[in-house]
This record gives sequence, structure tokens and C-alpha cells, in this order.
Amino acid sequence: MSRWRLLIESADQEGLVHKTTGVLYRARCNVIVNHEFADDKAGRFFMRTEFTGDVDKEKIMEELWRVLPPQPFVKLSQPGKARLVVMGSREHHCLTDLLTRCAFGELDATVDAVVSNHDVLRTFVERAEIPFHLVSHEGISRADQEQQILEVLDEIQPDYIVLAKYMRILSPEFVSRYANRIINIHHSFLPAFVGAKPYHQAWERGVKVIGATAHFVNEELDQGPIIEQQVIPVNHSHGPIDMARAGRDVERQVLARAMRLVIEERVFLNGHRTVIFD
Amino acid sequence: MSRWRLLIESADQEGLVHKTTGVLYRARCNVIVNHEFADDKAGRFFMRTEFTGDVDKEKIMEELWRVLPPQPFVKLSQPGKARLVVMGSREHHCLTDLLTRCAFGELDATVDAVVSNHDVLRTFVERAEIPFHLVSHEGISRADQEQQILEVLDEIQPDYIVLAKYMRILSPEFVSRYANRIINIHHSFLPAFVGAKPYHQAWERGVKVIGATAHFVNEELDQGPIIEQQVIPVNHSHGPIDMARAGRDVERQVLARAMRLVIEERVFLNGHRTVIFD
Amino acid sequence: MSRWRLLIESADQEGLVHKTTGVLYRARCNVIVNHEFADDKAGRFFMRTEFTGDVDKEKIMEELWRVLPPQPFVKLSQPGKARLVVMGSREHHCLTDLLTRCAFGELDATVDAVVSNHDVLRTFVERAEIPFHLVSHEGISRADQEQQILEVLDEIQPDYIVLAKYMRILSPEFVSRYANRIINIHHSFLPAFVGAKPYHQAWERGVKVIGATAHFVNEELDQGPIIEQQVIPVNHSHGPIDMARAGRDVERQVLARAMRLVIEERVFLNGHRTVIFD
Amino acid sequence: MSRWRLLIESADQEGLVHKTTGVLYRARCNVIVNHEFADDKAGRFFMRTEFTGDVDKEKIMEELWRVLPPQPFVKLSQPGKARLVVMGSREHHCLTDLLTRCAFGELDATVDAVVSNHDVLRTFVERAEIPFHLVSHEGISRADQEQQILEVLDEIQPDYIVLAKYMRILSPEFVSRYANRIINIHHSFLPAFVGAKPYHQAWERGVKVIGATAHFVNEELDQGPIIEQQVIPVNHSHGPIDMARAGRDVERQVLARAMRLVIEERVFLNGHRTVIFD
Repeated sequence: MSRWRLLIESADQEGLVHKTTGVLYRARCNVIVNHEFADDKAGRFFMRTEFTGDVDKEKIMEELWRVLPPQPFVKLSQPGKARLVVMGSREHHCLTDLLTRCAFGELDATVDAVVSNHDVLRTFVERAEIPFHLVSHEGISRADQEQQILEVLDEIQPDYIVLAKYMRILSPEFVSRYANRIINIHHSFLPAFVGAKPYHQAWERGVKVIGATAHFVNEELDQGPIIEQQVIPVNHSHGPIDMARAGRDVERQVLARAMRLVIEERVFLNGHRTVIFD
Repeated sequence: MSRWRLLIESADQEGLVHKTTGVLYRARCNVIVNHEFADDKAGRFFMRTEFTGDVDKEKIMEELWRVLPPQPFVKLSQPGKARLVVMGSREHHCLTDLLTRCAFGELDATVDAVVSNHDVLRTFVERAEIPFHLVSHEGISRADQEQQILEVLDEIQPDYIVLAKYMRILSPEFVSRYANRIINIHHSFLPAFVGAKPYHQAWERGVKVIGATAHFVNEELDQGPIIEQQVIPVNHSHGPIDMARAGRDVERQVLARAMRLVIEERVFLNGHRTVIFD
Repeated sequence: MSRWRLLIESADQEGLVHKTTGVLYRARCNVIVNHEFADDKAGRFFMRTEFTGDVDKEKIMEELWRVLPPQPFVKLSQPGKARLVVMGSREHHCLTDLLTRCAFGELDATVDAVVSNHDVLRTFVERAEIPFHLVSHEGISRADQEQQILEVLDEIQPDYIVLAKYMRILSPEFVSRYANRIINIHHSFLPAFVGAKPYHQAWERGVKVIGATAHFVNEELDQGPIIEQQVIPVNHSHGPIDMARAGRDVERQVLARAMRLVIEERVFLNGHRTVIFD
Repeated sequence: MSRWRLLIESADQEGLVHKTTGVLYRARCNVIVNHEFADDKAGRFFMRTEFTGDVDKEKIMEELWRVLPPQPFVKLSQPGKARLVVMGSREHHCLTDLLTRCAFGELDATVDAVVSNHDVLRTFVERAEIPFHLVSHEGISRADQEQQILEVLDEIQPDYIVLAKYMRILSPEFVSRYANRIINIHHSFLPAFVGAKPYHQAWERGVKVIGATAHFVNEELDQGPIIEQQVIPVNHSHGPIDMARAGRDVERQVLARAMRLVIEERVFLNGHRTVIFD
């Protein structure tokens, strides 16, 4: 029997759970896990179901459209590996962690290419038999550099682009080309310490916790919908460099966790926020 | 419109979510929040729904029985304040925390009496205008002491009995009288450090985290189903007394959180484990 | 033998630990615990020592001044209970928690008065036999209201003033009168969500952790040196009200922990930051 | 100027901090960070100091021996990379994480060889240009298998041996050969769930937190001194396989953190416990 993943987003209405589970029940599907959420304020309904069954996909889609409010988003698919492009720079920890998790099947994805504006991670990437594209930002306009990156991306058509400490700001044009498919790891618990050098900012402010935030990238810097956040305690003996070291463990963990959620299609966008079924 | 809370536990079967939500949909209930869980291994189905509606309770119960597998547990009620008896001893922190939370409506419960084998907390309790029953264990058999306690309890018929650092072992007879309605806070992350002086045990073993566990009391010491656990880090500079001090904050928080879950009927028993909808 | 607490802050210099411990060694003190920290960037040295001994306080002070760099801060005292005034409003959780901890000796302090701009907590406070001063802010200028509060404070001369969810902004004049002695609990992990309604702000931004911050109050809103911060996870199902409920547990715990640190004189100010020996 | 690391362990005595810092002060050392701890119950003194200075090592050692109680342990060295042998099996996550951290200098160590009883991690290891030794346990006695491993180890003479999910019990003879130099990661918060299949045990017991423990290996199974522990929350929807997945992130993090502490010589043994200066 095949395994299926059903995603629904629509206007909210009484009885939607009853109606959608009815479609699956009549098709003799075996529901493995089911999550739903209704956002009262926004009037939106979200649902994610995993089931097994020998089903006629077209027929199920048709019946779902019939019972759901007008213009629903419905996606029914058999889960396969997501295809990623990872963009890095000089820091290794998030990039090597992601590549290793994908290589051993801990994340259900393949890394189809790495794009970097520095060459330091080339050896690690190429040993993993992943194409490494150096696209330096030096002596070149941002538009031209992004154009070179887009050529790599457009060839590959990845499901998601992961900014694994890429450290450069992408233009709104670039972002809109891959809207809601670019995930960034920011080294602070946003909205604290937006922008550059968040560990220095954290040290200046004398905070007692630092953290990391994985979020979708949109046109505003560090303002995209948040997927995952974690923090760790620090104290007066931590300078900015100690914070950065301690923070790396949080960063790689937050990004890995966010990517698992994204890859398994557990994340719905709900305006500036996310709905996450885990 | 009235607010209702529906609890269901039954054998598992395909389509139960569809069928039960159908009953509510046809009765024009407005579902506020809905949780369900199917334990594949045990073949059990659990569901908790909050809804508003002007409903005929008997009719809904009847229809639920019709669609559910034989011999389901179904409870449909309008949430009211739970009635607690708190049993304490000499340590104040869990008891005063619970009483204060109930007094200010932070927990949806009333404390109808406090029973203690020591007198030190009497003033605090009586100032809160709660009856305080001193039932000393000295110069008296356990059976006789428990009999005196049972007289207080049987008079009150509380929904739940909270052992807020009561520190004495209850007999199986006592426990069975209030089966699955006695909640204890144990000062370790069970199953580590069962029994007496867990902080000393933790210090001896040199652990780097300590914790607390809120659990239902059954006939085996510290073996009842776990409701809530939390831990905090410790280090080599913590002796047993420092651990006990640090642990108190975890204890009161774990017990308060567990009692909120129990009082709001978010906790189902599933053999030796719990299913918790929060 | 008496128990002593020694606090030192001075310019930094090589050998300060050797020299100060030498003073105590020659006086045959029995050091129980010793903490020191040198801030390289600021060139400041901080030290806190607990010891027992039958010592000549004046002689030790004199010798410390001799070995320390010019104009050191030195405080040598026998620890006693700190004297607090707690300022509250309508929310009970931080205030009742502090009063209870002080009443049972869990915090080494007495609450000498409660000042509140609302009357709802009067009963709890007066049952604890603590004077309750209602100083409403309605129909009165801030200057006049603060003047009334200062009359209470100046009479009591407390060691510390605790804003236990006082919810109103104090004037710079008020703050400077009790500089570095006013502690506030803010319901966000600062510097995120400065100002009003931080849980609403957190919900709007879609964060996945919320928190609380205890800090000294200075003339800038929510900008004072941070003493303690903690966070808890939230998810899409938490509206602002759920966040506020979950946040209360963090708030009371963060404030209680900060007050323990302050009361036991474990907190040094270091510019905008704190040095904390725990 | 050279950078030095000083480790001291001795019987406890009044004035040891004063005396040892005096030796360094007279040698005009520049102390960067200093930690000390006296275990009152055991009567033991522990100290770790980092300093820079152009010092005569022999002279400092001599002076320290003069001021310390008889038979102290004193180690004064210029920090260099530690040399590790990592033992693995089939699970990749701890091993790949350690190798990557060492390769990029995040841990101050080199992995000089990997020994494994399965072949699945060979490619990753060899791509990192680290010798991979397959020493199967099949069709061979434990004594013979351990003898083959010891031949690899004795050739390399590593500073530490890391059991990165090696999953087999080492004989007391093997352990004593590398006493206090073998570090294991156990997938539970010890002492809970000693022995095999801890995630299954955790699921059976219905715990609400799971964790991991890094500890020195001694002759008793899972009883060695604990270096680091962390936990994460789980709930009723986690089966043993989900717990294992969630646990892997804790395992790799706990082991990496423990190895940083060990490699930087921040861990002292104190009977069955550890003293850790971080």
C-alpha cells in the first residue's frame, strides 16, 4: 500500500474535519497521523494528514474540493526526497551538519549543489560528491553575483534554498523568485538583534540567554515567518567570541530541526506567522 | 451558549474522528479545540473536544455510543471548578503555590481542605480560609492514621487528592480507594532515584541534571503513570542541600503544571502511561 | 564563629586574587566560597567571598584597602535579612510568590510593605500581616502619585524595591532616588518586545519562544542591566492570552531567582551589564 | 609569550588559593582565567588556571610542590591538540559530528583513527583522510576482538578513546588499560535506563523527558563518572523510534560538549563524580 501526505489550507468553516476525514474514510484510507488547526482570528483552516491506501488520487482531490470552501489549497502526494541547494560562506557548522544529515538519510532530502562566496568549504563538499559553485561577491555588483547564483539555481530547480550562514543580504528580486522557499538561520532569538553581529549586540546588552532563529526569507531583513527558535544561557564570563562558539551549537540544531519540519511539509504559512504540525 | 468538554476513550477503529465529529457537526456544535490520538500498539483511541452549543446532552451521548466501538468511555460535561484536597507535611513550597493559584483562579479548582501530619503550615492555610486537618503519624499505626485521613476525605469527596510533599507512603488500600485520583510530586526525574532522599542519591551519583516528576499514585512506590517532568542543570558545587533548594522551583512548577492538566481533564490514562492533550 | 560576606570591586591589576586571599589567610578566616572575575575590556575586578572567622572587621578593611588599587569598593558584612518594598498592581502571581518565599525564609528578606495602585491584592497582603498601601494613579498626576509612594518608601528605607508587575513607568527622578535598587520583571526576553503588551507583540511576530527578564530599573524604559532571563517554547496554537498564561510561570520564577541573587549580594553592576556569582 | 594551562589536585587546606596564585604572581604570569573548588566532604582541592608568561616550568613546578600539601597532582603544560581514537558501529551521528568538529578546529583535537565493528561508516571516515579499522565482533571471542582493537590503540597511544555509539560492552581489562581516558555516550539521562535499549525502556515507562549522558567508562556498566547530561521533552505521540530520532540530536550535542570539556582539560575526577571548570 502506498503512503500519502495530504495538505489542506482553506477558509475556516464548521465541520471541515468531519468532511475531510469523511473523504478519506470512504476511500478506505488508513490514517496514520492527522493534525488540524483553525485560526479563529484569520478565519483560516489548516490540515495535514498522513495515510496509507490504494487510492485514486484524482477522485480524492475532486471530493475534497467538493467539501471544502471555495479556492482551497490542496496537495496530495507520495512523499519523496526534497531537493536542496545550500548556500554557504566561510562558517562550516550549519553546512556540514546539513550535508551529513542528508547523506545519511536523517533528513529526507538531497543536497543537489552548494553555492558559496568563499572557497573554504569546497573540499568538504566535493568529498561528499556534491557540486560546489564558487560565486564570489568581490569585484562584482550584487545584481551580477545574484545573476550567477540564479543560473545555478534555475538549472537545478530546487525545492528549497537553505542559507547556511550565507551572511549576505539577498535582493527582493532574488527572494521573490523563490518566494517561501528560502530558509535562513539567524544567530539571535529574533526579533532581538536584527542585522549584523548579533552576538556583539547581545554582549553589549548583557543578555543572559542567546539563541538562534530559522525563518523563511522575505523582502524585509530578518522579518520573515519564524519556523524554529532555541536559546541557551550565557553569563558575564562570555565575551562575544564565547557567545559565538556556544551559539554555533544552537544554530546548527535550530536549522536542522527547521529543515526537517520544512522537508516533511509540516510548516504552513499563516500571514507573518507559521503553523507547524509536529 | 454553553461551553462543553467531551472526553472519549475506546477501542481504535478506522473513521472514529469522522464519526465523532459528525455527531457534533449535526448537533450544530461550534468546536473550539479538538485533540485525538490513536495508540496503534494498544489499539486504543483517545479524544478530547471543547465546543460551545445549545445541545441535548442525552441525545449527543446516545449518538456517540452508536458510532463508537462497544464499551466506550464517554464523558460530556460543562466544565466547573474541580475540588481538591491537598496533603502536606512540613515543606511549604508546593502547597502554598497550589493554594495561591487556586485562590486567584489560575487553577480552575478549589482547595476544600488541607490534611497534614505536621502543624507548620496551619497559619498559611487558615489565613486562606481553608480547613486545616492535623493528622499526626506519631504514636499511631499507619492504618489508624490513614483511617483518620479517609474520614476527612470521605466527607469531602474531592475530585483529586494532591500530595504536595506529603513524604509518607500510602497503603495500597488507601490508594485503591481513590484510584487514579491521587497525584504526587516526586523530587527526581523518575525512574531515576526512586524512594527516599533523591537529592542525596543524585549528589552521590554525580548527575548534571536534577528534576521533578508529577505522577498518579498507584500501589507501587513511585511507579505510577507520569504526568509531567522537568529538569534543571546542576554542577559539582551543588551539595544535596543546594540541589534541594534548586529543585524546589522545579517541584512547584511541575506540580502546578500537572494539576492544570489534570483539572482541565487533559490527561488520559493509557496503561502505565498517560496521553496528554495540551 | 561569625559568618561574613566580602564584596570587592576595583580597577583590575595582576595579583589581586593572591593579595586579597592573603589578607583573609593571615586573619585565619575559613573561606567557604570564593568567586572572582576580571573584565579585561573594562579593566575592572570583581570578587565575592563568604567566610567564617572571629575577625577584626576594621583591620581587614584596612589591609584590603592597602593591597587593592586606589578607590576600591569594599563591603564586609555579616549577612542579615534584606528589607524589601514590593510594588504591585492587579496581577497576583509575582507578588504572592515573593511574599510567600519571604514568609517561609526561602528568600533571605522581609517584605516591609506593599504599595499598589489597585486594591485587588490587599486581602492576600494583609493576611500575611504586611502593610498594604493603596496609591491610586487615577485622577492624579504622575508626580503626585510618585510623591505619595516616596513617602512610604522614605519612611521604610528599604534595601530594594521590587516591581512585581507594577505596570507603570516610573519617572527618572523616582528612579534616581533609589538608583540600582529597583528591580523590575518584564514579560519578554529583552531586548525583544520593549514596552507595552509584549505578549501581543510576540504573537504578532510569530515567535516560537517567549520569556521574561528581571532587570535593574534605570532612566530608560526596559534598558536597565539584566539580572536573569528565561524562556519557554510556544507554538501556533497559543494566542496572546495563552502566552500570557504560560508566561506567568516564567515571570514568577525569573523574578524569584533574580531576587535571590540580589538579596544574597551576588550581583555586581558592570556598566550596562551585570556580573553574577552563583 | 607562551600560553600555559595549570592543573592542580591535592588535599584541601586553608590558603591554597593564596599560595598557588602567589607562585604565579611572583613569576610575573598573566592569569587569564582561574577556577578553584574545594570539596569539603572529601577534603580535596581542585584548581585550573590559564595564564601567559615566559616562565621557567621546572621552577614553577618546584614552588608549587613546596606550597601544596604532600603528594599533589600538578600538571603544567602548553595546550596542544589532543589525539583521539573514535570507536563507532553503525550509527553515524555522533561519529560524523566529532570528526567534522575536529576537522574544522571546533574541537582542539585530531582523530587519529576510527575503529568500528561495522563497515558502514568507512566511506565518510576515509574521505576525511582518517584511517578506518574494521574489527568485526562476529565469529570471534570478545577477548580476541578487543585484542585486535588494542593493537590499533597501542600503536597510536591516543589521549582519549571516544565510544561514539560503539554499542558493545568493553571488558574490565580493556577499560583498565585506558583508565579514565575512555568516554562513552549513553542514550538516557543516567541513572535512568541503564543497559540496552534505553529508548524502549523510556517509552515503556512513559517518561516526559528523554536525554543523553556522556561519562567516563569504568568497570561497571553505565556507572562511570558523568561529564555532561541534557534532556528534551517527549510526549505520548512519541514511540521508541521517534524518541531515538529526537534523542540523536541530544546525543551528538552532549558528546561534543563533553569532549570539548575533556580536551580542554576542564574535567577533574572526584571519586565517582566530576568537577568541571567551564
